[in-house]
Amino acid sequence: MNYVIIDDIIKNALLEDRVYDDITTESITSPDSQAEVDLIAKEHGKICGLNVFSRVFQILGDVDINFLKKEGELVKKGEIIAKLRGSTKILLSGERVALNLLQRMSGIATAAYNASEILKEYGIKVLDTRKTTPGLRYLEKYSVLTGGGFNHRFDLSDMAMVKDNHILAAGGIKNAVQMIRKRHPFIKKIEVEAENLEQVKEAVEAKADIIMLDNMGDELLKECIGYIKGRAIIEVSGNMDATRLQNLKKLKIDYVSMGKLTHSVKALDISMKNLKIIK
Amino acid sequence: MNYVIIDDIIKNALLEDRVYDDITTESITSPDSQAEVDLIAKEHGKICGLNVFSRVFQILGDVDINFLKKEGELVKKGEIIAKLRGSTKILLSGERVALNLLQRMSGIATAAYNASEILKEYGIKVLDTRKTTPGLRYLEKYSVLTGGGFNHRFDLSDMAMVKDNHILAAGGIKNAVQMIRKRHPFIKKIEVEAENLEQVKEAVEAKADIIMLDNMGDELLKECIGYIKGRAIIEVSGNMDATRLQNLKKLKIDYVSMGKLTHSVKALDISMKNLKIIK
Amino acid sequence: MNYVIIDDIIKNALLEDRVYDDITTESITSPDSQAEVDLIAKEHGKICGLNVFSRVFQILGDVDINFLKKEGELVKKGEIIAKLRGSTKILLSGERVALNLLQRMSGIATAAYNASEILKEYGIKVLDTRKTTPGLRYLEKYSVLTGGGFNHRFDLSDMAMVKDNHILAAGGIKNAVQMIRKRHPFIKKIEVEAENLEQVKEAVEAKADIIMLDNMGDELLKECIGYIKGRAIIEVSGNMDATRLQNLKKLKIDYVSMGKLTHSVKALDISMKNLKIIK
Amino acid sequence: MNYVIIDDIIKNALLEDRVYDDITTESITSPDSQAEVDLIAKEHGKICGLNVFSRVFQILGDVDINFLKKEGELVKKGEIIAKLRGSTKILLSGERVALNLLQRMSGIATAAYNASEILKEYGIKVLDTRKTTPGLRYLEKYSVLTGGGFNHRFDLSDMAMVKDNHILAAGGIKNAVQMIRKRHPFIKKIEVEAENLEQVKEAVEAKADIIMLDNMGDELLKECIGYIKGRAIIEVSGNMDATRLQNLKKLKIDYVSMGKLTHSVKALDISMKNLKIIK
Amino acid sequence: MNYVIIDDIIKNALLEDRVYDDITTESITSPDSQAEVDLIAKEHGKICGLNVFSRVFQILGDVDINFLKKEGELVKKGEIIAKLRGSTKILLSGERVALNLLQRMSGIATAAYNASEILKEYGIKVLDTRKTTPGLRYLEKYSVLTGGGFNHRFDLSDMAMVKDNHILAAGGIKNAVQMIRKRHPFIKKIEVEAENLEQVKEAVEAKADIIMLDNMGDELLKECIGYIKGRAIIEVSGNMDATRLQNLKKLKIDYVSMGKLTHSVKALDISMKNLKIIK
Amino acid sequence: MNYVIIDDIIKNALLEDRVYDDITTESITSPDSQAEVDLIAKEHGKICGLNVFSRVFQILGDVDINFLKKEGELVKKGEIIAKLRGSTKILLSGERVALNLLQRMSGIATAAYNASEILKEYGIKVLDTRKTTPGLRYLEKYSVLTGGGFNHRFDLSDMAMVKDNHILAAGGIKNAVQMIRKRHPFIKKIEVEAENLEQVKEAVEAKADIIMLDNMGDELLKECIGYIKGRAIIEVSGNMDATRLQNLKKLKIDYVSMGKLTHSVKALDISMKNLKIIK
Repeated sequence: MNYVIIDDIIKNALLEDRVYDDITTESITSPDSQAEVDLIAKEHGKICGLNVFSRVFQILGDVDINFLKKEGELVKKGEIIAKLRGSTKILLSGERVALNLLQRMSGIATAAYNASEILKEYGIKVLDTRKTTPGLRYLEKYSVLTGGGFNHRFDLSDMAMVKDNHILAAGGIKNAVQMIRKRHPFIKKIEVEAENLEQVKEAVEAKADIIMLDNMGDELLKECIGYIKGRAIIEVSGNMDATRLQNLKKLKIDYVSMGKLTHSVKALDISMKNLKIIK
Repeated sequence: MNYVIIDDIIKNALLEDRVYDDITTESITSPDSQAEVDLIAKEHGKICGLNVFSRVFQILGDVDINFLKKEGELVKKGEIIAKLRGSTKILLSGERVALNLLQRMSGIATAAYNASEILKEYGIKVLDTRKTTPGLRYLEKYSVLTGGGFNHRFDLSDMAMVKDNHILAAGGIKNAVQMIRKRHPFIKKIEVEAENLEQVKEAVEAKADIIMLDNMGDELLKECIGYIKGRAIIEVSGNMDATRLQNLKKLKIDYVSMGKLTHSVKALDISMKNLKIIK
Repeated sequence: MNYVIIDDIIKNALLEDRVYDDITTESITSPDSQAEVDLIAKEHGKICGLNVFSRVFQILGDVDINFLKKEGELVKKGEIIAKLRGSTKILLSGERVALNLLQRMSGIATAAYNASEILKEYGIKVLDTRKTTPGLRYLEKYSVLTGGGFNHRFDLSDMAMVKDNHILAAGGIKNAVQMIRKRHPFIKKIEVEAENLEQVKEAVEAKADIIMLDNMGDELLKECIGYIKGRAIIEVSGNMDATRLQNLKKLKIDYVSMGKLTHSVKALDISMKNLKIIK
Repeated sequence: MNYVIIDDIIKNALLEDRVYDDITTESITSPDSQAEVDLIAKEHGKICGLNVFSRVFQILGDVDINFLKKEGELVKKGEIIAKLRGSTKILLSGERVALNLLQRMSGIATAAYNASEILKEYGIKVLDTRKTTPGLRYLEKYSVLTGGGFNHRFDLSDMAMVKDNHILAAGGIKNAVQMIRKRHPFIKKIEVEAENLEQVKEAVEAKADIIMLDNMGDELLKECIGYIKGRAIIEVSGNMDATRLQNLKKLKIDYVSMGKLTHSVKALDISMKNLKIIK
Repeated sequence: MNYVIIDDIIKNALLEDRVYDDITTESITSPDSQAEVDLIAKEHGKICGLNVFSRVFQILGDVDINFLKKEGELVKKGEIIAKLRGSTKILLSGERVALNLLQRMSGIATAAYNASEILKEYGIKVLDTRKTTPGLRYLEKYSVLTGGGFNHRFDLSDMAMVKDNHILAAGGIKNAVQMIRKRHPFIKKIEVEAENLEQVKEAVEAKADIIMLDNMGDELLKECIGYIKGRAIIEVSGNMDATRLQNLKKLKIDYVSMGKLTHSVKALDISMKNLKIIK
Repeated sequence: MNYVIIDDIIKNALLEDRVYDDITTESITSPDSQAEVDLIAKEHGKICGLNVFSRVFQILGDVDINFLKKEGELVKKGEIIAKLRGSTKILLSGERVALNLLQRMSGIATAAYNASEILKEYGIKVLDTRKTTPGLRYLEKYSVLTGGGFNHRFDLSDMAMVKDNHILAAGGIKNAVQMIRKRHPFIKKIEVEAENLEQVKEAVEAKADIIMLDNMGDELLKECIGYIKGRAIIEVSGNMDATRLQNLKKLKIDYVSMGKLTHSVKALDISMKNLKIIK
């Protein structure tokens, strides 16, 4: 977790919340007032983003944080995650931004963890996608990793990926793969998204590094997997939920990618409670 | 929807996705290639963010968009929302960022709409909170409004709000309200969050403009509402879902606020399909 | 005074002054030279912006500042406000930017103080406006508060305000107020600007929270105040100077707003003198 | 007037005023409503900043502006400066930011003009200083030029300037000038600030290009001018007002510099009036 | 070439050159003056960056550019690359920034072209490195591609690369490769830098995708190449010049990487000449 | 060397290299691992940019650097410039950006030093130009100064400079100089670029402060120098290399300007070697 990238996100969030003009807190606290407060999990989950959380307060001033849980640890409802101690004003004014980041990151890590747990004994890995929140992609992909998932490409330059509309634009999978390989032969892998067996065959023939089987029923999936037979890495995708993951887990696939890990986040319920003035 | 604020969000998202180095699209399309593509709803919901969607392509270059649906309109699964026509390269490279924004905004508008529909015949309004995604608060609050909800305070300066930790810091509700009113007597309203009847009484006595009844059971709620009796606006809050909203709807309350509208967004499923090269 | 907002203003000002290329100071001082210098008031006034002043030097490096006056204190001509000690280079290069901010803020606080003194025994408060210097609104409104004045709305979203051109656009005060209340019923107050008794009547009827009596003569003012009679908060506005304030002070009004506090600032004369090399 | 520099200033000002969330205007106007409105001078002065004014509206959208006055022209109270026609929403929401810039720039140009008029028949020119508003230096120095004044150095790198504290740091004027000339022999002139005849003599001897006679009484001024006798350009400085300028005008000096042109601006009174809905 | 990324680079460069305060041009041209001017190659080379060049003027205002050469075309000394026509002021003020970018990019493309020409008939490709100019990496890597070279990794996340210090830190090549593969199994290739045969063997055993033979003499090179024998892609690196390239060309290697393409650029000599006022 | 300006350059470079997502280093090092590493010169030259180098690591976290060489000192091949000690992760991830800056700056200082050495005993000074790398002008001009050269104007506002196209636009040198002097009489010098004796005569007559003799042969040079005879400072320019400098050194000129100092930098070869894990 590197301050070069998170500081701008945090400062932007603090400005967005007008933390410098917190009319409630400024009216009721003196500048020297000091307090303690607890950070408490209000539901079970995987905690993620502790450095981001503490950096919010560090940017605002001096707050001491004693973390009782570690990054990536499972927490239970009611457990204390950290004890904070410092300027009352900063604790109150920074709370919302710090929690908004921590709850979102922990929610993503928890979802990645839950999906990974279903699949991991079968050697299948869970992937994220580029369906992330604009501006927060790095934090969200980091959260997937912390939860036990793996990262698909970060952006449009990270790997070539031939999807339905690209196939239409290029006039076929073979054409597309050849053109890409000619221009970027060195470090870039090529993945092809296939919706049927024909496309899978084309992709294997074109020597795609990875083939993504998109939105296929179980029968078709098996047929395609049988055809590929180790000639490419296999990723399966399309509206994954717990039931669907259960169906997939015995197939000979390498990866399952899940857009909902980041496009439909459920924040983990965490709050700051029991503020106590100590000075 | 004002470009002064959305352009920075969009440019940031495009840079984050390295739209300028889309190795797939650059390899397979010529600079002059033109195409058409459809924007299609893949589930029912309230469409929101059309201007943001079109601005993504406008920033990248010239794309003609013919919208068949209007901002805030309900769309059905399978309906075409818009027809796009323009540079193949821009259509392919801008797709993900444009959809990430549109799907999130439509997801929020849909959730706000669904909650509002349950309550509106009883004159109860749905509010958002400050539990928004860092960096996207304006877009998210706009989406709540578009969906039929209303906006709670935008940030820490928009209204004074005395919550549990503030009460602890100030040594009581009365103290807190007086200190705030002294410093900001003019345009700022004051809301007090109460967790029990004692606090409600203190808040009424302190002449809070709004009282938020937080996480109360139905009996306590009724008691508090009866006590307040028009002496303050009433907001009810705390882990709202459809069942809970049904329970609330016959109470004499003014507002229900829902953090999940923005902290646990479910993106609306929308995609760009059927690309056709036209030149 | 929160660094999240002032650091960008200060860095921008330092870059604007090319503090990194101070050809005079770099030529005449060695990097290790240390000096002391005094910050001196050259006229009477209210000192404001001490944190901003010290932050300029903190951003440039290590300078020790011993403040002999407190934020908001009255200073007399010739009094020492602070003693600075640190790198000669930083003291000389940062001087102008630090003073430009301190003098402007103290000038505003002094003007707000002087106006407030005339009115305060009559319970009338002085307000600022949105006629502030682009980019410095927060600092300027903070200075008004420090001087003893109060803040009108910070920006276009802070409260609804129906002015002459809005009345023309909406087709009357009643229409305007109703439309605003429908869309923003929750935390936003509504103020109406009235230029004559007719408009005051309309505003009262529309239940405006605040009525601003704009540019009225004394007779008309009294008539309007009599009509309103506690049914709305009263703000009086329009080219205020000391004489005009004297006339207003016995009227039953709540607030007087003064654009000139911020649009026509007179900087307080303060300078850094008596530099002494100590190493 | 170059958009590369003014666009950031304007966008920053529009964001500061939350132009994207103008709750009044959004509630009362429809998106297609069109209007006309007049820009009117409410006092005499020199108009400056017309391009900045129009750029505010251009950034917000399409507004047609027909200027009846030219940049730098004198306007009389009551005269129409421009007629605007365009989106009602944009006209109302952009008004304050556009006026804040125009009024400040015109106020500076007017002050520079007034001072220049007193001195110009004697061949003495009026200069600004670096006592400008942080963030707006370019606009303010442009305004001085438009008003008929001239620009002193823009920043710390534009020329070397040896002031009182530099003399103390360098151990004398001669030392200071030599050290500067050694390091920056090529394009930089050197100015020395002198407070007495001794310093003037030192400065002449050191071959300063410009000597600034700071805060001197008339007798001392004459003595110093007589001594310099064309061996350096002469700038006179120190708390200038109209009376003082009258005294100076017959002296053989080249420039008078006035900090108050920019540190104590009096905004020119200009407003937008008579909005008329046309569609 | 995408404006989302180049506009910030260009605006930054224009501000750095204070294009808004070009005291020469502003003094000698009227705002309406129009001119024509030629863009001329003053030495042979590969032209690159025409879109960046034209975008500089587009950002400043309206200039018509008629390009006689295409991106990536070879130009000869004395040939006209483009004819420009537009505002005299913009042509003169924007010239330096536009040329600084064009000359640098063309210099890089020319060097990449020259190296590629030596090697291409042997199927060996030329690569750039991360030794680029801070802030201009995208433009520089684009220039290498335009010149006929290929891109090595863009940044630290684009591929894993185990270099000398990483080997020391990880305690051996095998360890390093295993740890990387465990954490990033999906889209990232792994390259190992080897300085001797032992390391090459370790790298082959660890199944590195690419092995870089760093700073080896010809004999050692041959030995390593013989050992690898198709089991990994081979990149050769280390202080390449024309002579060295000649030696390498008959070896069975895939890529040669050259830091000097970007860390020691020789700008191509190009200038704007023969300005003619046309209005 | 002032952090206000270099921090943005460094942060931008670190983001460009995605230092926060260094997949190699993150995979192979633990967060607490500490190491030592040497900074070594791999060729002779003038070292420049030590503060920039150390600031890169300071921004990333805590690294102790013990410099064995001073800014501007000559280093020999194989000499240790500094010993670094700190977080292994930061040392490895920050290496490339830190070296890219240090090598470029040292390369420029070395070139400026070499040229200056040839000319200095004749009292001729070496100047840089505005042909710098976009975004790095300040660092590059600082490097020239550190190497023993001098700075020409920083930007378009730093001095007026009448070049070939300006002469064509203004209709002659005399016109140009008069127009500039009228508008900017105070602190700005005026330089005229002359390509033949006629222009030199015009420039002398117009009282240009500096005359640049551009691309002239030796005979013409002598003739022009003879004509000027102390009536203006003389700068000679045009494709300078070591041989050309030898020819110039006995002429009575003041300055030689060299574009290649910054437009065709040769990076000094410096590297970080011998990493040793210490914890």
